[in-house]
Amino acid sequence: MSIVERARHSHEAASIVYAEPAALRQAVRTGRFATQTAGQAPGFVQGNLAILPREYAADFLRFCQANPKPCPVIGMGEPGDPALPRLGADIDIRTDVPGYCLFRDGQFAAEAANLLAHWRNDLVTFVLGCSFSFEGALVEAGLRLRHIDEGKNVAMYRTNIPNVPAGPFGGTLVVSMRPFAPADAIRAIQITSRFPNVHGAPVHFGDPAAIGIADVARPDWGDAVAILPGEVPVFWACGVTPQEAIRAARPPFSITHKPGSMLVTDLRNSALASF
Amino acid sequence: MSIVERARHSHEAASIVYAEPAALRQAVRTGRFATQTAGQAPGFVQGNLAILPREYAADFLRFCQANPKPCPVIGMGEPGDPALPRLGADIDIRTDVPGYCLFRDGQFAAEAANLLAHWRNDLVTFVLGCSFSFEGALVEAGLRLRHIDEGKNVAMYRTNIPNVPAGPFGGTLVVSMRPFAPADAIRAIQITSRFPNVHGAPVHFGDPAAIGIADVARPDWGDAVAILPGEVPVFWACGVTPQEAIRAARPPFSITHKPGSMLVTDLRNSALASF
Repeated sequence: MSIVERARHSHEAASIVYAEPAALRQAVRTGRFATQTAGQAPGFVQGNLAILPREYAADFLRFCQANPKPCPVIGMGEPGDPALPRLGADIDIRTDVPGYCLFRDGQFAAEAANLLAHWRNDLVTFVLGCSFSFEGALVEAGLRLRHIDEGKNVAMYRTNIPNVPAGPFGGTLVVSMRPFAPADAIRAIQITSRFPNVHGAPVHFGDPAAIGIADVARPDWGDAVAILPGEVPVFWACGVTPQEAIRAARPPFSITHKPGSMLVTDLRNSALASF
Repeated sequence: MSIVERARHSHEAASIVYAEPAALRQAVRTGRFATQTAGQAPGFVQGNLAILPREYAADFLRFCQANPKPCPVIGMGEPGDPALPRLGADIDIRTDVPGYCLFRDGQFAAEAANLLAHWRNDLVTFVLGCSFSFEGALVEAGLRLRHIDEGKNVAMYRTNIPNVPAGPFGGTLVVSMRPFAPADAIRAIQITSRFPNVHGAPVHFGDPAAIGIADVARPDWGDAVAILPGEVPVFWACGVTPQEAIRAARPPFSITHKPGSMLVTDLRNSALASF
């Protein structure tokens, strides 16, 4: 989902916009903020959350390192340690995300408002970059994002592009799609190339069938958007990829953020730009 | 034409490769080198030459500034001065290019081995970046260039994209085309974006008709190349654009390099990279 769309369509949209990540996290921690984070702390990096038992963490880290486009690691915790000092001095991952999903054997088990009753000494936290940062850069450059204009979630698709496997983690790449006229696609490639830690440059454009997408009008997640005459679909690696890999690996216990309720970090989006 | 193609197919290919631009220019100046410059002084920038009377120079410079993708100015002389110290301390533009074409009223009039008999105190030299530099970067990155593989000149086309006019200079953009699979096209966009002084990023990819090219199999200059299944044509601004603009402006006198016989400068290709 896009920042704007999430803000516009959330059933529980926040009425306050926090300017500072630490202030937002304090509100989350104390139960005063328990909704989607889109539009919060503008200009700061929001991250996807994956928490795994230590016995899965090394393989998952190898998986992320081998598949950096869908799985860009922007922060990682020590086993059992809920702190992430490089993403924010005060962060306690057990309390600082507005909502969590708990999985058992890869299957969704429950939501949780915090992890105080679920934390274990063997849990390892991963924070992965997401497309919020590069979508912000595209919008700042004057490009229109169709799913925002149409008030929809971005369209996401399974592909036939295999991930590099690591231990029990494998599967195929999931992509998000944004349509552009060619000149705008070239600009979007330039801009997103600057952000390798939030999926980076596209992996494909044009013919969806070339990457195993049978029908671009039927996304596997999110909503279909119009592709206008003269436009081409442009496909970026998507953060659903590691979520699907974890699901398929069936770890006995794992945790993610609740969709739309991200960890808001002290990293600035601009600090992720590679040049 | 590509570096490799020019070297391979020139009827008068040089048997010696000069490593240093100054040594090559010395050989040109003394009549020992009078052929195409492709493959000479590897790693150094070669430039297109345009020499115009002073009364046309200001408008032409404005034209180049307004159309930087087809007309990237990498060097300019003072009126009547054949030196270009920023491109090479020893350069004398009257003698340091292996061949020249003279035009009267925009029409080709004669070739010349040097300009000693043709130089005038009102002539202004422009050196424009060319695609040699970015083609070198693409090849170094492991990308295949179809026209090189096929031993052909790169395909070039008139488009319906208007140049920003300046004085008598106007017309439409001329583009060169190189076909790539989408993933390679994305890489090529990234690489050429680093070289704004040698045409930079593509201006278009995909449907040729969208930029006024009726038949991609019939280029206006150069040779048609195969576009394989799954590939898309990618179009870059081309240095033929300013040549055509000069031709149409019909200055009473003008000079260009003989095709393939470029000014070899002391600038390194890598120095043109913007990041």
